Amino acid sequence: MRSFITVKLHFSAAHRLFNPAWDFDTNQRVFGMCNNPNGHGHNYILEVTVEGEIPPETGMITDMKSLKDLVEERLIRHVDHKHLNLDVPFLDGIIPTAENLAVAFWNILDPVITEGKLHEIRIHESDRNAAFVRR
Amino acid sequence: MRSFITVKLHFSAAHRLFNPAWDFDTNQRVFGMCNNPNGHGHNYILEVTVEGEIPPETGMITDMKSLKDLVEERLIRHVDHKHLNLDVPFLDGIIPTAENLAVAFWNILDPVITEGKLHEIRIHESDRNAAFVRR
Amino acid sequence: MRSFITVKLHFSAAHRLFNPAWDFDTNQRVFGMCNNPNGHGHNYILEVTVEGEIPPETGMITDMKSLKDLVEERLIRHVDHKHLNLDVPFLDGIIPTAENLAVAFWNILDPVITEGKLHEIRIHESDRNAAFVRR
Amino acid sequence: MRSFITVKLHFSAAHRLFNPAWDFDTNQRVFGMCNNPNGHGHNYILEVTVEGEIPPETGMITDMKSLKDLVEERLIRHVDHKHLNLDVPFLDGIIPTAENLAVAFWNILDPVITEGKLHEIRIHESDRNAAFVRR
Amino acid sequence: MRSFITVKLHFSAAHRLFNPAWDFDTNQRVFGMCNNPNGHGHNYILEVTVEGEIPPETGMITDMKSLKDLVEERLIRHVDHKHLNLDVPFLDGIIPTAENLAVAFWNILDPVITEGKLHEIRIHESDRNAAFVRR
Amino acid sequence: MRSFITVKLHFSAAHRLFNPAWDFDTNQRVFGMCNNPNGHGHNYILEVTVEGEIPPETGMITDMKSLKDLVEERLIRHVDHKHLNLDVPFLDGIIPTAENLAVAFWNILDPVITEGKLHEIRIHESDRNAAFVRR
Repeated sequence: MRSFITVKLHFSAAHRLFNPAWDFDTNQRVFGMCNNPNGHGHNYILEVTVEGEIPPETGMITDMKSLKDLVEERLIRHVDHKHLNLDVPFLDGIIPTAENLAVAFWNILDPVITEGKLHEIRIHESDRNAAFVRR
Repeated sequence: MRSFITVKLHFSAAHRLFNPAWDFDTNQRVFGMCNNPNGHGHNYILEVTVEGEIPPETGMITDMKSLKDLVEERLIRHVDHKHLNLDVPFLDGIIPTAENLAVAFWNILDPVITEGKLHEIRIHESDRNAAFVRR
Repeated sequence: MRSFITVKLHFSAAHRLFNPAWDFDTNQRVFGMCNNPNGHGHNYILEVTVEGEIPPETGMITDMKSLKDLVEERLIRHVDHKHLNLDVPFLDGIIPTAENLAVAFWNILDPVITEGKLHEIRIHESDRNAAFVRR
Repeated sequence: MRSFITVKLHFSAAHRLFNPAWDFDTNQRVFGMCNNPNGHGHNYILEVTVEGEIPPETGMITDMKSLKDLVEERLIRHVDHKHLNLDVPFLDGIIPTAENLAVAFWNILDPVITEGKLHEIRIHESDRNAAFVRR
Repeated sequence: MRSFITVKLHFSAAHRLFNPAWDFDTNQRVFGMCNNPNGHGHNYILEVTVEGEIPPETGMITDMKSLKDLVEERLIRHVDHKHLNLDVPFLDGIIPTAENLAVAFWNILDPVITEGKLHEIRIHESDRNAAFVRR
Repeated sequence: MRSFITVKLHFSAAHRLFNPAWDFDTNQRVFGMCNNPNGHGHNYILEVTVEGEIPPETGMITDMKSLKDLVEERLIRHVDHKHLNLDVPFLDGIIPTAENLAVAFWNILDPVITEGKLHEIRIHESDRNAAFVRR
């Protein structure tokens, strides 16, 4: 039997989907409305899932409060109320799709989670669209 | 007994809260994180409530599908996947708070709703914040 | 200051929107997809709101459990897992729109609520459409 | 046209519904499972609605962030992760039903809201039960 | 690290659970209220998850808009506002449980998804019941 | 292709997180607000997922109604409207974290599920925190 916890955090951000190597028409064909030059935005939901053993003396794979503080410090404060294309150094040069956000967040969190092991990063862009990466 | 219907529509947009007549520091003090110069964004939920009589031959105050088409045509397609400060002529010169969006949307919809009478416009900026205007 | 409670109940039902006095084409024009002859269906949410005084010895306008039992007995068991056009005597001859359901439910509940006074009946047909009646 | 904002906050608390002036059997008959002597608990949702004018220079009836900070300071930190019967001085001697919480919260917030006027306090005890007080 | 996207779509349909090879009493014993001869209905939620590589030039496993259009074309328009037992050729002879819907939808979508690979089909019949199939 | 069903049930309970072998300060450092001596509480959501074959004569991995009745009988009635530290024999000596609840529930349900095989137990303590165990 494997055991996991999931914490959920929120952030609100603007973004634009486009590939700067392409002309406007190609971007429009590939990204459609998401290529609006002035950007649009979302209330993102971020779910972080950690797998680990449950120590009997605490009953906690890892302390959820500390995990949330870590995610807040490493991720949320850098992206909340920001423009993902313009304001976030660790997203420089990355097209801010939900898939790429999940990968970028994984790469930041994975090395700093020390109790348990990162299992999944899931990003809900809206209540209709989500992306996730998983071991 | 009064009777009403409510339809709910969604749009995703970027915005920035600031008063161009003020300097950056005043804007920062008043609007805080919402004053990020590159903007941020939300998945907005718009609820439109219409009051009216229920005709026995249809059982409908107004056809919900037609009402949604009207809201889509007059409002949603102008704001969805847009930057509310930069891309929306009917919001020119208006600080795009949830309150002001509700008023602006009211002013557009009220004259064109002909079956029943507009009762309320409610805007959810997130699942924690909403504004509404009502007769 | 006025005080209220709301209880929320669920039921799943089939229905068809059409006026038997009209031909198929007129029904199709007025009710569109909702006129599918074999019907379609919804998970309905019913919200019942009661206004009343809060007696200091109980702190309850009315007992929510008893109110739910009453709604269950008078309404839910007659409509849950039923076809609203075919299986529900108290809806005979009524086009089962959300508006008409709200009125029919009001007419049944209003006389039998004796602690507090019925204030509102709200029917959510989906997370995009609702109707309500209110004093 | 009247205008309003609503902010939503969360707290998790234990409570027991019983009237200390009554014997156990009477409490059991009136409050049922809610009279469990060791208490039970909920994730409460608190919605605070303020009515006011929308000043053109800010577009905000009142700053939602400041309003939430006020509610956090005056209410949430006193009830979150607490036992409502045992840990909250301002609820002493009050049966902690949703109705009574709404009244107690109103009495605390109403005098300290200075931008706009408190319009409604709504408490969701679960996604099936709520109580609210309103002018 | 494996990567996935999920899109969510909605449809409203009527159905009846029964095995035509059995008599009414056997069906009633096995399917209970779901065997109501006139049917009942649900607001179904369909979640489609696709696994794939994330190409750096788009950042998208597959375009979510195109995937939704495909699901709309192949599935949703055939089941939305329909009776699943009577109106849907590809469900002929299949008892329309959530499990069987998931399998039938998988069999239709799997061959036509060409960017990435179908990973999971999940059907929510209500907010209390779901079924899913997965590689 | 593997197939699964998930049923979702709710319960409301009080709990306190602390290790009786430790002094108050250690508990406070480890469990923070969750160590409030009088406890606090949650509306828990329990998701039970069963994997199995879909028999063609029923289209059901297992009857969802019977599965819910089983979970109600074995789990929910023992924890709903209870204090998890004080009122639940099968949780004696267990710190009632979400992780430990998931394990305890697994140990009770796994032996008594006879149609299909238990695949996952997921506990949502709030809409921000969850734990799950899985084969």
